Amino acid sequence: MKARVHVMLKTGVLDPQGEAVRHALGGLGFDGVEGVRQGKVIELDLADGTSEATVTEMCEKLLANTVIESYSIEMNA
Amino acid sequence: MKARVHVMLKTGVLDPQGEAVRHALGGLGFDGVEGVRQGKVIELDLADGTSEATVTEMCEKLLANTVIESYSIEMNA
Repeated sequence: MKARVHVMLKTGVLDPQGEAVRHALGGLGFDGVEGVRQGKVIELDLADGTSEATVTEMCEKLLANTVIESYSIEMNA
Repeated sequence: MKARVHVMLKTGVLDPQGEAVRHALGGLGFDGVEGVRQGKVIELDLADGTSEATVTEMCEKLLANTVIESYSIEMNA
């Protein structure tokens, strides 16, 4: 089974990577880009029967820095 | 309006970041993690009426290195 985890900086935490992308898009002539936030996506290939609680534990222990990052989990059978 | 772009390394391209995460999860006692791929997620806050074609152009020109990365776009009103 597969799980996909999104890890994004929390609102209010400065995101210099996203800001750099926004600036570069402006420089390439793309108007109307009001904001950009960049985060990570982690695709996990897991043994069948792994619970969402286990993936939550992985996020808390390793995948996200919960002080400054939030995460969301999508489980796919 | 918002758009979300996922950028992942193409299948077959070595992903040392993902491999490091897989190894670290094993070290923390999480069994059954068969594979991990890590990519980027970019959330764009765009002017209303921006088309998906424009976002595709952003991906081709800046957001993804299409030689080794694939991307997917989700548009949200």
